[in-house]
Amino acid sequence: MKVVVIGAGNVATHLAKAMQQADLQIDQIWSHQYKNSEQLAKEVNAKPIVELSEINKQADLAVVSIKDDAIAEIATQLREFKGCIVHTSGSVNINVFSQIADNYGVLYPLQTFSKNKEINFSNVPLCLEANNQKTLQLLHHIASLLSNSVFEIDSQKRTILHLAAVFACNFTNHMYALANQIVSKNDLPFDILKPLITETAAKVQNALPLQVQTGPAVRHDETTLQKHEELLKQMPQLLEIYKTLSEDIKNQIS
Amino acid sequence: MKVVVIGAGNVATHLAKAMQQADLQIDQIWSHQYKNSEQLAKEVNAKPIVELSEINKQADLAVVSIKDDAIAEIATQLREFKGCIVHTSGSVNINVFSQIADNYGVLYPLQTFSKNKEINFSNVPLCLEANNQKTLQLLHHIASLLSNSVFEIDSQKRTILHLAAVFACNFTNHMYALANQIVSKNDLPFDILKPLITETAAKVQNALPLQVQTGPAVRHDETTLQKHEELLKQMPQLLEIYKTLSEDIKNQIS
Repeated sequence: MKVVVIGAGNVATHLAKAMQQADLQIDQIWSHQYKNSEQLAKEVNAKPIVELSEINKQADLAVVSIKDDAIAEIATQLREFKGCIVHTSGSVNINVFSQIADNYGVLYPLQTFSKNKEINFSNVPLCLEANNQKTLQLLHHIASLLSNSVFEIDSQKRTILHLAAVFACNFTNHMYALANQIVSKNDLPFDILKPLITETAAKVQNALPLQVQTGPAVRHDETTLQKHEELLKQMPQLLEIYKTLSEDIKNQIS
Repeated sequence: MKVVVIGAGNVATHLAKAMQQADLQIDQIWSHQYKNSEQLAKEVNAKPIVELSEINKQADLAVVSIKDDAIAEIATQLREFKGCIVHTSGSVNINVFSQIADNYGVLYPLQTFSKNKEINFSNVPLCLEANNQKTLQLLHHIASLLSNSVFEIDSQKRTILHLAAVFACNFTNHMYALANQIVSKNDLPFDILKPLITETAAKVQNALPLQVQTGPAVRHDETTLQKHEELLKQMPQLLEIYKTLSEDIKNQIS
């Protein structure tokens, strides 16, 4: 099976590598920055292309893994492509391809990717959607080569998942960033918080978050809450977040 | 060395077990709920006591691991105790013991503990503080038997650490809870988010959070941000949190 990858960012890179390791042939890479296509092409033994018009129209699959806002525009340049076209976005509707292809879908990996961090792709949940049964079967086949965790998720539910992922990943990472801001400002090492971060994530692998919440807010420990608010007086943005989230935790019923 | 543990909650339980495994002798357990002392005593081969006046005054160490608000009052009942007294709280000053003991300090384990979840105590950062050199040495000795990660942290810095831990742990767990709320409301499984949660925590073990942030806010992807805000219209509290945190992420400079 021959695959063309359109994009060379974090998702495109990890997906292309995983596909290559699964013995899918990455034929071509296109990115709007040629040096990125060149680099990724080298890593997965593919050919970088300068113009989308150079695309191998006979390839089986085109994976569009670029900025959400750019997908619709790039799609219009893929009208000649004969194979199946998918994007990898959490929040773009499958219909973005309805005017330009017969067989299309979505292959959304629900994970956070950084270019320089290896990932075990077999654990990455892959959310599939297709415009017809034949394409769905093709995507299931490809997904099963890449991951042990495959789900059929339609566009509406995928947007919901993507929103939940913002809380579970981006906002969580922001909490780490704020914690780091607090310790750094006081000459304390971020390292000391790392086992806590690991354990907090580990706890919810086997229990619901509400059941394992700890800390002053869930205990309604007003003395500590006030002490913390006092400490944050010099950091008004953090103080606001502290108050909002503590209030929200106090109001949660487990 | 003989240890008396005052308290039988999450921290007391994990600490008592770790001490027993390190061949420290847990002599007695007291808790304001006798059935809890009885249960923990059974687990660590100690004697449960009903009244604090029954405490073995000749024991080497008393560990006060109870609610912050109760420490000062319990301390007044430990005047007769001859050994070293420590508490395990992140936000109570060491001076809580200054009127009732000669040798006292703090042994604060910077970790989130749940009763039914085992933990590798050797990775738990232990923050030590003592009122004199002799006590500090004793605490270093004990801490070194329990963990490979020992820090001297004074009361003021410990409060800061505890505040940072609220962000890194309690608020993070709350983000997981909100993510779960979003998926549950839409009949999607929380399981699908678990690899993402694990990877998000793993990424900051070797990089600063600001350097590895992903998602719509850091990309200033207004289309997706607006789509998400639209989806949260029926959940006003989540909408407020979404807006506040996205704004904060947009304003961060990495």
